[in-house]
Amino acid sequence: MGVEYLFGSKEREVIQMRIPKHVGIIPDGNRRWAKGNGLKKEQGYDHGLTPGVKVLQQAQAYGIEELTFYGFTVDNCKRPKEQLTAFKQACVEAAKLMMKEKVSLLILGNTKSKCFPEELLDFTKRTNFNGGGTKVNILVNYGWEWDLSKKSEEANKSIRSSLYSSDISRIDLIIRWGNMNRLSGFLPIQSVYSDIYVVKELWPDFKTEHLEEAIRWYDKQDVTLGG
Amino acid sequence: MGVEYLFGSKEREVIQMRIPKHVGIIPDGNRRWAKGNGLKKEQGYDHGLTPGVKVLQQAQAYGIEELTFYGFTVDNCKRPKEQLTAFKQACVEAAKLMMKEKVSLLILGNTKSKCFPEELLDFTKRTNFNGGGTKVNILVNYGWEWDLSKKSEEANKSIRSSLYSSDISRIDLIIRWGNMNRLSGFLPIQSVYSDIYVVKELWPDFKTEHLEEAIRWYDKQDVTLGG
Repeated sequence: MGVEYLFGSKEREVIQMRIPKHVGIIPDGNRRWAKGNGLKKEQGYDHGLTPGVKVLQQAQAYGIEELTFYGFTVDNCKRPKEQLTAFKQACVEAAKLMMKEKVSLLILGNTKSKCFPEELLDFTKRTNFNGGGTKVNILVNYGWEWDLSKKSEEANKSIRSSLYSSDISRIDLIIRWGNMNRLSGFLPIQSVYSDIYVVKELWPDFKTEHLEEAIRWYDKQDVTLGG
Repeated sequence: MGVEYLFGSKEREVIQMRIPKHVGIIPDGNRRWAKGNGLKKEQGYDHGLTPGVKVLQQAQAYGIEELTFYGFTVDNCKRPKEQLTAFKQACVEAAKLMMKEKVSLLILGNTKSKCFPEELLDFTKRTNFNGGGTKVNILVNYGWEWDLSKKSEEANKSIRSSLYSSDISRIDLIIRWGNMNRLSGFLPIQSVYSDIYVVKELWPDFKTEHLEEAIRWYDKQDVTLGG
């Protein structure tokens, strides 16, 4: 456990802090990084491996109990073949690196598609390594629709049509006043791909500039819908 | 349609912009506003009514097709009675104000609890006002678990236990690298109450400072879990 992880010289500070038990990691930017460094897009993923181990070790030093990494999704599989091969391989490598640490590892995703890497099939049940420790979940060929479909496999109805809120469509932009960056249970299914814009001011202090700025910001965001 | 809504003097700009079709509005901060203005907490909601109408009119001028307002949730009903009465009444008033506009209104929420205001029962099917127009959805006594429970009412299993990801617990903090503020389908159920921290840098540029700063930020966030 490196002291450098413990908030520099004030190592006691971490003890008094409210440490999250479970942290989600969305490790975005590998392809942009590759482009920015004169590499092909698919060469970025390899450079995302070391950060994964670093963030795990740091989380362990902080006392974080569970980490979930967003590997790749069912939708990501539509990407060009070179990229698909590269991020599948990166997930396998990432899992192997995690296995060298004190972790309780779970690989979660739809195993019934050829996108799921065979090498990881054995780890779709939680497995202890080096005596176990931090719960580490890696989402591999994960899909939110797949996840929610478990309940009604027999009913064969899509999750969207099975909501009380089925008359409310997918949300493109969510604007939250009051400076918190969270959804608080707001339409989880319609929010899966939404861009979230946070306004510092409290709602009663609404100004038309807020929506204006949110729209300007939204205009600059990439649309991927998970693709 | 006020020109002031159309991005000041550059009115044509809005036309070239990618306008979101459906915008979610989380109008948070009414109680903090009341406290900051020397009022009782429950007196804040009334001051949130005019902003609601303003944001609707502005959205209409921009050509936004659908707006969903987060009114209150099943969990919010556990709050002190004065607050409950106040935010229920504010939702009724907000709906009445919306009815004066060109909207297609839907009130959505669990009507089978006494928290649901009787005055709104007639509007739980989408209703046109003044010839119809912008779709306006107001979530009143909404609960994400209630929403997702439609599918399996007969099965009587909780949504959490009916996920492929049921072994992954609720997430406290989500950290996303690469400067996007969105979930991209990441575990929607476990993310309903998560705080989301965005790191500007790309994932391969990971520094331990990122997690450190995320944890510091998280420490300063209020925990409410929808309560």
